[in-house]
Amino acid sequence: MSRVFNFSAGPATLPEAVLREAQTDLVDYKGAGMSIMEMSHRGKEYDAVHNEAIASLKRLMGLGDDYAIIFQTGGASSQFAFVPMNLLGPGQTADYVHAGAWGGKAIKEAKNVGAVNVAADTSKEKPSRMPKDSELKLTPGAAYLHVTTNETIEGSQMKSIPNVDAPLVADMSSDILSRPMDFTKFGLIYAGAQKNIGPSGVTLVAIRKDLAERGSDKIPVILRYKTHVEQNSLYNTPPCFGIYMIALVTRWIDAQGGLAALAKINVEKAALLYSAIDGSGGYYRGTAAVEDRSDMNVTYRLPSEELEAKFIAEAARHGLKGLKGHRSVGGIRASIYNAFPRAGVETLVAFMREFQSKNG
Amino acid sequence: MSRVFNFSAGPATLPEAVLREAQTDLVDYKGAGMSIMEMSHRGKEYDAVHNEAIASLKRLMGLGDDYAIIFQTGGASSQFAFVPMNLLGPGQTADYVHAGAWGGKAIKEAKNVGAVNVAADTSKEKPSRMPKDSELKLTPGAAYLHVTTNETIEGSQMKSIPNVDAPLVADMSSDILSRPMDFTKFGLIYAGAQKNIGPSGVTLVAIRKDLAERGSDKIPVILRYKTHVEQNSLYNTPPCFGIYMIALVTRWIDAQGGLAALAKINVEKAALLYSAIDGSGGYYRGTAAVEDRSDMNVTYRLPSEELEAKFIAEAARHGLKGLKGHRSVGGIRASIYNAFPRAGVETLVAFMREFQSKNG
Repeated sequence: MSRVFNFSAGPATLPEAVLREAQTDLVDYKGAGMSIMEMSHRGKEYDAVHNEAIASLKRLMGLGDDYAIIFQTGGASSQFAFVPMNLLGPGQTADYVHAGAWGGKAIKEAKNVGAVNVAADTSKEKPSRMPKDSELKLTPGAAYLHVTTNETIEGSQMKSIPNVDAPLVADMSSDILSRPMDFTKFGLIYAGAQKNIGPSGVTLVAIRKDLAERGSDKIPVILRYKTHVEQNSLYNTPPCFGIYMIALVTRWIDAQGGLAALAKINVEKAALLYSAIDGSGGYYRGTAAVEDRSDMNVTYRLPSEELEAKFIAEAARHGLKGLKGHRSVGGIRASIYNAFPRAGVETLVAFMREFQSKNG
Repeated sequence: MSRVFNFSAGPATLPEAVLREAQTDLVDYKGAGMSIMEMSHRGKEYDAVHNEAIASLKRLMGLGDDYAIIFQTGGASSQFAFVPMNLLGPGQTADYVHAGAWGGKAIKEAKNVGAVNVAADTSKEKPSRMPKDSELKLTPGAAYLHVTTNETIEGSQMKSIPNVDAPLVADMSSDILSRPMDFTKFGLIYAGAQKNIGPSGVTLVAIRKDLAERGSDKIPVILRYKTHVEQNSLYNTPPCFGIYMIALVTRWIDAQGGLAALAKINVEKAALLYSAIDGSGGYYRGTAAVEDRSDMNVTYRLPSEELEAKFIAEAARHGLKGLKGHRSVGGIRASIYNAFPRAGVETLVAFMREFQSKNG
């Protein structure tokens, strides 16, 4: 068996050690005589896993008892609806930053629910970039300000947390737990698990408990954050296997040395790639503004679409998979989340040099 | 390693062969160099699995092109909200059958969305039972009639499909694919996967395409059935691993001989247990009316709660796990879904005889 280097944007590569542990225990979890997938979500074995995942995430994010970690499903796309359904009351306005495709989707869905003000729109700009605090046109008394900390398709990433009065809501799907951050500056953070923390099918939500109380009694019980906070994500059957995988990933993060250690590696991996792009004499061209370049999704172009197609195909033959940019923008995208190994970045950089010398 | 007999109501036992195949392929799916969990949901390997699961479910259910199979998340509890949000328009009334705890939850959630008429309520009756067609007080022009085909907590199961004019909507979470049925009599069928068809975290929805069109443009895009029908459950990242497990389970069902063969085994397994209950001279007492007894969840009592606690504890020591009845009703519940082996039922029956002789 040989594992390839998997640059997929999500579902994305997981730590091999985590997969191997899950494999070992898949049919008989720690001698229980059944898989973790087959266990009652109200039994003691699963309960330990569930609460370990919650406690580890709270610890890694430095969140206290005024926050709850809940597990939902439906990905960030469902949160695009759940956030305004819960937090945007009648007569209120929510501010949104539109810096890329995902922010745009969040805005479109929120408009189905209530009043939205686009506080800044850099989504059409090239190179792609994040707006500065000074550019934000905020609504006085806004219900919240929604940001996307990393735009996966455009390859841009917020390097600082906006300083605003309204509760800050963040889609961190593509950079959650990839760097230390003052997470207490946010009122609500959500992330589909399938990039940095687990498989698809489970969504992490960290919410300040007072905000969870805002949910109207008019919306269905299952769609209220309050329900899941009160029931510790056991109101109904949770996506147990996905939560188990998150628990294993948090242990792996601890073993790497925590968020600061991961961030150091992540920055180095990204710098290697950006340096190869910048050192190519314009053969490879990054698509994001230098100061906002993402450490998670490195996006770039080649001199022609024909060369891009050839690059992607040849890279795949070298065991470098999933490098095709999002279908909406084309080009190359190397997603190098927490679990992506540095050796894969080094192999890609070597391949880029070789490809350029043959096709320059 | 020894597998126990796992009577859990859900998450529930899966076919051992399915778990072993998933285990083998977990780190490297068919030589792709990555796990099925790590693959792009838009790549060819995952695409084949996704479409196989859909095609197999349509075939097993005998559904034609006027139906779509979609995969959602959030379990039946989310469908309790999504069904009325999509199918219950302003000025309309939906009829609901209340024959147990799950039907009751569906009603409670629907009332948060629109006008509900409880067409029959047998939920307080003992023994528990399903209402007859003649008892249904239907609303002329109702948006739909909602039924729960198997009440997991009460141990009762619908033995025939109600004959009504309104579209029939069914929660089949606990007996989906356990028996042949004219599935075309239903407008919408939903089922959390974690009892008969896979792990928790994925929900099967079979919907007549004309009903999917009913969803209002006012509700969020992600909550409209129409969105997922049009996008073949790829509007956003699906719960890929859960869908993969469903694909494996459908192959296992085919290998067993399909729904008719499974039903034969399921009826035999249940008959063995009911016969042990009925032959115990009243020591064990079934809680459901004989004609509505579930082939999936066999619920019964012992002469006292003390004996029930002792029974559950001793059974567990004999490798018979998960026999405790739902916390809301107590007693014993043996959940014997498709994947539960006949040998486990035989072992339980022998244990019941022995327990009675020692504690009679």
